[in-house]
This record gives sequence, structure tokens and C-alpha cells, in this order.
Amino acid sequence: MIRNVAIIGLGLLGGSIGLAIEEHAPDITTTGFDRNPKTRATAAKRSLVGTVCDTASEAVANADLVILCVPVGAMEEAAAGMREALPKAAIISDVGSSKQSVGEALAKALPDHTIIPAHPVAGTEQSGPDAGFASLFTNRWCILTPSETASTEAVQSVSDFWTKLGANVEVMDAEHHDLVLAVTSHIPHLIAFTIVGTASDLEEVTRSEVIKYSAGGFRDFTRIAASDPVMWRDVFLSNKSAVLEMLGRFSEDLTALQRAIRSGDGDALHELFSRTRAIRRQVIEEGQDDDRPDFGREDH
Amino acid sequence: MIRNVAIIGLGLLGGSIGLAIEEHAPDITTTGFDRNPKTRATAAKRSLVGTVCDTASEAVANADLVILCVPVGAMEEAAAGMREALPKAAIISDVGSSKQSVGEALAKALPDHTIIPAHPVAGTEQSGPDAGFASLFTNRWCILTPSETASTEAVQSVSDFWTKLGANVEVMDAEHHDLVLAVTSHIPHLIAFTIVGTASDLEEVTRSEVIKYSAGGFRDFTRIAASDPVMWRDVFLSNKSAVLEMLGRFSEDLTALQRAIRSGDGDALHELFSRTRAIRRQVIEEGQDDDRPDFGREDH
Repeated sequence: MIRNVAIIGLGLLGGSIGLAIEEHAPDITTTGFDRNPKTRATAAKRSLVGTVCDTASEAVANADLVILCVPVGAMEEAAAGMREALPKAAIISDVGSSKQSVGEALAKALPDHTIIPAHPVAGTEQSGPDAGFASLFTNRWCILTPSETASTEAVQSVSDFWTKLGANVEVMDAEHHDLVLAVTSHIPHLIAFTIVGTASDLEEVTRSEVIKYSAGGFRDFTRIAASDPVMWRDVFLSNKSAVLEMLGRFSEDLTALQRAIRSGDGDALHELFSRTRAIRRQVIEEGQDDDRPDFGREDH
Repeated sequence: MIRNVAIIGLGLLGGSIGLAIEEHAPDITTTGFDRNPKTRATAAKRSLVGTVCDTASEAVANADLVILCVPVGAMEEAAAGMREALPKAAIISDVGSSKQSVGEALAKALPDHTIIPAHPVAGTEQSGPDAGFASLFTNRWCILTPSETASTEAVQSVSDFWTKLGANVEVMDAEHHDLVLAVTSHIPHLIAFTIVGTASDLEEVTRSEVIKYSAGGFRDFTRIAASDPVMWRDVFLSNKSAVLEMLGRFSEDLTALQRAIRSGDGDALHELFSRTRAIRRQVIEEGQDDDRPDFGREDH
């Protein structure tokens, strides 16, 4: 049974976990820490956690679950910094978007603790302590990637915790997680960052034109490309091999489409565009997106 | 002064124009035609236009503005089919997403008429006669690409018409339009169609996993990739050279990013990701997108 949760890093994810606990599991006490004093001040003002502490050691001192909500490149240092203060029985988890490297980093920093890496597949393009909200995990999936030696009880505890916050939980191995998320999250972000960069560097088309006519599709990409730069830098560096593998597939497919356009092969284009339409329907049927046109972003 | 508008093609765009006229310019009478009888029946039921006609000739017989709202590959045939019935003074316009090829096709089919090609940069992923709504063009840009020989009066008439429907109007040459829209609309669609196709063809990751974990970014792409297959096939084939040119730039930039990931160049990634965030802010400042997280698609 998890009674005391310590949240390290009080940005979008950490803050949302704190708020979701308050809403869905008010019997759990929460402490939190962020190394940025301004973030701690905002966290205290918004009551993201019960107690905002001035050090990570203080925050974790009585925790039975510690959740690291820092960029994946900062996990090892954050974990190592709290080692002396951690209760022996505390379970260590996180919310990082890549799991193999995080699992290794946490195991290295805290070799004597039970580590259950987790990835709630949820978020927005916003970041920081003002961005969190209690319903972020509702009907979203949370993937756990415990090592083979992790106890069933610990996996169950973390699973029950996320279920309480409104998420659906899935357990898979870290390598498979990294491949799946490379396709469903990392490559989409990489492509969005790239096309927004390409558009802003053109000489023949002004920045102002790109902005004005963005409603033709581009604006959707600017949302994703507004995501936290440090978080995403770390994701790509820590999930390098799966990202490069999937990027290779994407580039092959893009080249094939380029060839179809060049040769005027309308049938090939039509066939692909019809198939992709069906995927959208499935995403909506599975409750993973809004079925209103344009995500309902404008009132019709 | 435009008093009678004929709309040929009663899908998302044609239907929205009819509804927007009814809302914003009720003194204009509207007639409409679609070659699909089912679409005509729905159009009549939804009152997309004042009179749904059984032939294009009937629809255009008294028009002073005819707007072709058919896929760009079908423009020439649609225009040629109404030639005999068209009043001499009628202005011909359209809503196609590429403008050089459409301008040429219309000029070829109707050499004796005034042609003012237009592109309202607005739409959703939905299509057909059920998809239209009156506010589609509110605060969106409509680009006119008249030939050099078009009369100032005719350009002004079409411009005034779109302003009445709530749009902002810009005039530019067709070649520049095609380059700008290749970046802000055509390439984003091409990339979205590609990655959704790539994801659905993988052996290592199941279709079900792609759908379940789509909230990590992929679901945004599925929306765009659900757009009308025929319309988009025609866009890519008709704006081939600008699309291939911009695709070349995008591929170069993607290759550079791939190299940065492979070599672990975190600074290069961080620098790009910080720049792209600023573009999002401009899109919002210019009123071209919703500033709520996730486009406000979920209630927070």
C-alpha cells in the first residue's frame, strides 16, 4: 500500500501527479521538490503537493514511492543525490519517455532499491509548474517496464497507484516500449520540430507568410514543436537506436511517396491516403482522441 | 456587385460557402450542384444553398459568380461542362489548394471568361455535404491569384465577397502561392500521411499498440492523415514541383537532425527545439490557432 509519495521535479508531469493524487486518492500524502526555487514557489502557491520541500532528501525521507519527474538525462544525478535519505523500502519510479536508458541509470544510482520505471503516455505542449492539471492521466495509458527481478508486489503497487489516478496500465519490456514510443511519439515530434524549422529558414517564403497561412495544416505541427526543448533533447539522445531505426523506415516511405509524386502515380497516393483515414477512426474508437473536426479547437 | 452565386461541388468547402453566405450575406441568392445525387439530397436537406439543381448548367444559368469546389484534378472538366450555360459576365472562381495548374485549367476550359482563382486557407479533416459549417472562414485567409490581365473590378468583387464571409483577403501570384502552401499545408499533409502509413506497416509494433499509445503525439498526425484522399491526391499531382522542392529542403533538415542524434549533439537539438517553440507563439498571436493546451481538445 502506497501512503506517502514524493515527487521530484514539479513541472507538467510532476504537478499533474500531485493534483491527480489530491483529486483521486486524497488519503495519500504528497511531498515534492524541484531544484528551481521559482518552480518550488509556484508549486506551493498552486498546492501541487501537500508539502514543498527545500531539498530532495527532505522530500523523500518518509516516502514509500518516489517518482522522478525530471528530463531523462537528469535521472541518474537526481537519483544519486537522494540515495542517503531514501528509506530502504521505498519504490523508485519515474515518468520518462524512454525506458531502457532510464532503467539502467536508476539501477546504477540506486542499486539496492526496487525500481519500477513508468511512462504515462500523456502530456501537452506546455511545461513548468503552471501547466499541470488533475485529469491529465484520465483514460491515458501508463506503461510500466520493471526489470525481470522486480517483485510482483512492487509492480502491483505502482500499477494500482496509476489506476487510481485514472490511467490504464500496461506492463512491457523496456526495449519494446522504446520501439513503440519511437513510432507513436518520438518520430512525430522529430518530424514536427524539423518541418517547423524548415519553414522558418526559407528565403523564398517569409516567416509572416508561414504564420498567416498555417491553418492549412502547419499549425498542428507547431503545437507539437512547442514542447519542452530539454525534455525532448534528452528523449532523442537516450532512445537513439530505436529513433534512428524508425526514422529509417519513415524516410524510406517518404522517398517512395516522393517517387510516386514525381512519376504522377495517383493510384499509389490514393491507396495510402485511404488507408491512413481508417487509422484515425480507430484512434477515436479507442477513446484516444476527440472526434470533433479540428479536435473541436474552434466552436462550430 | 455579386447577387447570384453558383456553387459547383457541395462538400466541406462548397457547403460551408453556402452556409456562410446565408449567415453573412443573406441578400445573395445561391444555387448549387454536385454530380453525386446523394450529396445533392443531403445538400437540399441541410439547405446548404437556396436551390440545389440537377445539372451544373441549371445552377450557373443566372450566376454572376461561379465557385468550383471540386478536387483540383476535376476542375477543367467541371468548367468545360458548364461553358454553354454560363452567362458572359459571370466571374469564375474556385477553392483549390494549388493555383498555377488550376488557373491554367480554367483558362483553357473557359477562355472567354474572367477567372479569379481563390484559395481559402481553411478546412477540417472531414469531407462531404455533412461536414460544412458557416464559420469555417472566420478570421482565416483567402488568397486570390488573378492573372495579370484580370480586371481590377472583378478582383475587387471576389475580394469583397470573401471579406463578407469573414475571411481576410490577400492577392499574390499563383507561383508564389504554390510555394507558400507547399510549406504550410502540402508538406505537413504529406508527412502526416507518410508517418501514419509507416506506423501501420510495422511488424515489430502492432496496430493496436500504435492506436493505444497515440496520445504521445501520433494522434495529431492521424487527424491530418484522415483528410479527403481524392482531394489530396490531386493537390500533390498538381503542385508537383513546389512540393518536391520543399520536400527536398525538409529531407535535408531531417538528415541533419538524424546526424545530430547519431553523434549525440544535444546542443544542436536544443537550439532547434527552442527556435520552433517561438513559432508556435507567433501562430497564436496572429489568431491562427487556439492557445489552450492540446488545442483545448480535452476539458482541463
